[in-house]
Amino acid sequence: MDIGGTEIKIGLFDGEGNLLEKWSIPTDRTDGGCRILADAAASLLAKMRERGLGSSDVIGVGVGVPGVVLPDGTVERAVNLGWGRLDAAGELTELLDGIPAFIGNDANAAALGEAWKGAGKGRRSLVLVTLGTGLGAGVIIDGKMITGAHGVGGEIGHMRVRDDEKEPCTCGGYGCSQQICSATGLVREAERLLSAEPEAESVLRTFGSSLTARDIADAAKEGDRIAEKTMDIMTRYLGRTLALTAMVVDPEVFILGGGVSAAGSYLTERTEKYYKEYSPISEYRADVVTARLGNDAGIYGAAAMAGGFGNGRTILGK
Amino acid sequence: MDIGGTEIKIGLFDGEGNLLEKWSIPTDRTDGGCRILADAAASLLAKMRERGLGSSDVIGVGVGVPGVVLPDGTVERAVNLGWGRLDAAGELTELLDGIPAFIGNDANAAALGEAWKGAGKGRRSLVLVTLGTGLGAGVIIDGKMITGAHGVGGEIGHMRVRDDEKEPCTCGGYGCSQQICSATGLVREAERLLSAEPEAESVLRTFGSSLTARDIADAAKEGDRIAEKTMDIMTRYLGRTLALTAMVVDPEVFILGGGVSAAGSYLTERTEKYYKEYSPISEYRADVVTARLGNDAGIYGAAAMAGGFGNGRTILGK
Repeated sequence: MDIGGTEIKIGLFDGEGNLLEKWSIPTDRTDGGCRILADAAASLLAKMRERGLGSSDVIGVGVGVPGVVLPDGTVERAVNLGWGRLDAAGELTELLDGIPAFIGNDANAAALGEAWKGAGKGRRSLVLVTLGTGLGAGVIIDGKMITGAHGVGGEIGHMRVRDDEKEPCTCGGYGCSQQICSATGLVREAERLLSAEPEAESVLRTFGSSLTARDIADAAKEGDRIAEKTMDIMTRYLGRTLALTAMVVDPEVFILGGGVSAAGSYLTERTEKYYKEYSPISEYRADVVTARLGNDAGIYGAAAMAGGFGNGRTILGK
Repeated sequence: MDIGGTEIKIGLFDGEGNLLEKWSIPTDRTDGGCRILADAAASLLAKMRERGLGSSDVIGVGVGVPGVVLPDGTVERAVNLGWGRLDAAGELTELLDGIPAFIGNDANAAALGEAWKGAGKGRRSLVLVTLGTGLGAGVIIDGKMITGAHGVGGEIGHMRVRDDEKEPCTCGGYGCSQQICSATGLVREAERLLSAEPEAESVLRTFGSSLTARDIADAAKEGDRIAEKTMDIMTRYLGRTLALTAMVVDPEVFILGGGVSAAGSYLTERTEKYYKEYSPISEYRADVVTARLGNDAGIYGAAAMAGGFGNGRTILGK
């Protein structure tokens, strides 16, 4: 399962990691998100009945959650779901008649998925950077997930990279990389540029308040100057964020995922240029590629966790 | 062995990691440092003869080198020794009649030492930050050294943290953390402040061109305003560097070593304040403590490597 702020994606996998079926249900965030796990469990149990599967036929259930998850599987906080501290693994196992449940951060789950079956296949060390509403990352080094001693491993979306930022990030800080390097950030940067240059012609003006990151990337590829400038700002800060990250863990490859990664080589080439500019220390650098599993990375990673891999344990070299 | 730019420290350890004897010889950097390994080998062989030890009595020799070391033990480059690419392990083993030699980056060796017998004893995850001529770091997560896919793991001294820097760092970049957070950086910051405020009284002026980081730390503790301001700038950027690092690997503890760490709690308290300011994402953070082994951390870590531990393998939990 991959629990997001709007929907819960669920996938049924066999023991080799083949996706047999996937579906999704809406996320009910009302009342502090207290019905989310029950809804997810009910949907899964219905699917099991439909396929004639009993509890003993299921090895386990992995769940990616958008928030801080402690090493024991307790959720510390998941703001977008309305959750405070919650023993999600214990509660879900109870709802599922004893089927073992494994909880992990959603960005980590996606990294596990890409490492197992996606763009990181065959690599020992990688960082998946998910450019969605925010910037999330999953760090796998020497075949092991780094979740951190306080659950903030891979929170590179909150690295301070811009000193003159006046608006606060959701974390309370200022100038966090995700304020620029995300779908939300791209739209905000474009709107700032459009306001700063009211006379400048740009196709972006035609979208009004429905402007999306996709519109900006498409317009940039068509040569729209404001859109190009927006992408240049975003890739500069993303390159800087990758350089900072590389100076700590130096992975083989950075994999860019999330909606913004649809921009493909336009995104990776510019990001690599700035990554290089911000890390002259070595002439050798990690590759920068786009993710392969798209929105399914989370459920692949959750399946890897359920198979007894994730949560800080290795899924590589198996 | 801990090979530095001015001297080579050598220690003789027993199998439990007890230091039996230590000594040092000067580093001969002339002619591209081509005599360094031969000098070190000759000194070690003389000590073995003195103690009646044969080659078969020695498990191995570990060596910390100030430069980029690839996973196979080849030195990629060690600027301060005058070395380019060098098979240091192979050459040393030959000079030592077949005694196995293990080469690692000196900052990583020091981190192994502190993890094994120093301030990191009993911790599974730590980052040793050595504040000397530059800023070096060794990263140990879940009991394993992270050296990186391109030998730049832990090069946090080259994180870009200051945007308005006009002088280049040794790496060719601008605004690297080690340009401020190091013994050299402290002196440079103090000199800048003294020039910027020519009328300001400060005890630091009495030192002239012989001003050291120690003088600055001592004067700051005595309330000298310029010295206090220098320490404030340095700890701000150091705190920022720790915050950036924590957002990737989130260790249990940061251990501050090197000459500057003699400032003790004056240093750690101010650094923690800024580390907190730059990482509002979580209320839980790594501890910040000073190193315990002082200048011996490198030879302890080298001994750990020789025992078959380091070079990316675990020394913790043993």
